Amino acid sequence: MHRVKVRVVEDALDANNTIARANRADFDAHGVTVINLMSSPGAGKTTLLEALLADGIDGVRVGVLEGDVQGSMDADRLASLHVPVTQLNTDPGFGGECHLDANMVRSALPSVPLHDIDLLIIENVGNLVCPAEFHVGEDARVMVSSITEGEDKPLKYPLMFRTCDLVLVNKLDLMPHLEVDLDRFLHNLDAVHPDVERMLVSARTGEGIEAWRTWLSELVAARSGAAV
Amino acid sequence: MHRVKVRVVEDALDANNTIARANRADFDAHGVTVINLMSSPGAGKTTLLEALLADGIDGVRVGVLEGDVQGSMDADRLASLHVPVTQLNTDPGFGGECHLDANMVRSALPSVPLHDIDLLIIENVGNLVCPAEFHVGEDARVMVSSITEGEDKPLKYPLMFRTCDLVLVNKLDLMPHLEVDLDRFLHNLDAVHPDVERMLVSARTGEGIEAWRTWLSELVAARSGAAV
Repeated sequence: MHRVKVRVVEDALDANNTIARANRADFDAHGVTVINLMSSPGAGKTTLLEALLADGIDGVRVGVLEGDVQGSMDADRLASLHVPVTQLNTDPGFGGECHLDANMVRSALPSVPLHDIDLLIIENVGNLVCPAEFHVGEDARVMVSSITEGEDKPLKYPLMFRTCDLVLVNKLDLMPHLEVDLDRFLHNLDAVHPDVERMLVSARTGEGIEAWRTWLSELVAARSGAAV
Repeated sequence: MHRVKVRVVEDALDANNTIARANRADFDAHGVTVINLMSSPGAGKTTLLEALLADGIDGVRVGVLEGDVQGSMDADRLASLHVPVTQLNTDPGFGGECHLDANMVRSALPSVPLHDIDLLIIENVGNLVCPAEFHVGEDARVMVSSITEGEDKPLKYPLMFRTCDLVLVNKLDLMPHLEVDLDRFLHNLDAVHPDVERMLVSARTGEGIEAWRTWLSELVAARSGAAV
């Protein structure tokens, strides 16, 4: 029975990858760079996006696809920044999916203005497990890890930390008030994903936001260059 | 295809409930009260358990079943408190399950000393979505919500907040350093689960731990009374 279960899951992931490639082809056709933004619930994805998008990214037109189990609170927050935001809820017909998959993203694409953007940021459902298993056609995975969650998280949720291209260590402003060892966190991060790019950030103070903006800008430029 | 998916999920949940009832019968036979402890990653489940168990619960013998995707860090932390701890990892043969289900708990029961405990606390995988969908045979669900995660969490992960019997609002000591509105959080909590019991706690300062201890003690007493 266990083997059957594994095979079913592998089939589902294989189907997901097929659809992810179709998404990717659409993104490529429109010259859109795509980020899959992931974290625990409440790690600060939306607040970081607000900090990033308040001043925009020079020469880069950004769109956001908001994944949530239910509601549109995050999309409402971002819409005030005059960025095209598409809401994708995972709850219809189900108790609520704990992640986005390629088919959900595909179903939302008709509502995403791919012609008018250079960068699409997909904010995934807050969860450190399943989102890491489902590619949606992204160019890069950015994960947000709030330092308030403790230094052991890379060891406990290794797949997520292993598959991301950039780790934003958020809520750095709270460090003086925590009993968390930042060096130990970074050591654990290197244990599961040696030398993965990381930035120390705070959505509240703005620390590290410019570095993240530059990283995104360079990613878009590299993709555009590659497409020429 | 969508309908097929929903039916498959319903079948899986039905099978889960069947096994949960079997677990429950075993717990009843041993007079063991069972708590399903759930939260986001890093909300403080293990640290709260350390605070709770350091002084024990008067007249109640406690055991812990630790659910993690990988590793045994939490179990190692709790073992130093001289409490019987059983580790349950969800990663074999899979990318890692994001929740415990009744069958996983059942597979661990031979390693749980049910004869020697009155209360079994099952620490679930850190996740606000799927753990809420899978009963494991518990008497009560306790969820930990760290106030650092923001006041909107009940609205974004409603099933979790709706199905729990007690909410521990943790990391209260950090309130002075956050831009989080506690009243708004409690208002949102009442919107999805009116009047659910809640306690303001801090694993670090010990605030609220005694109240939680009393709550657990009374639950065990009520179950023992009911069994007589």
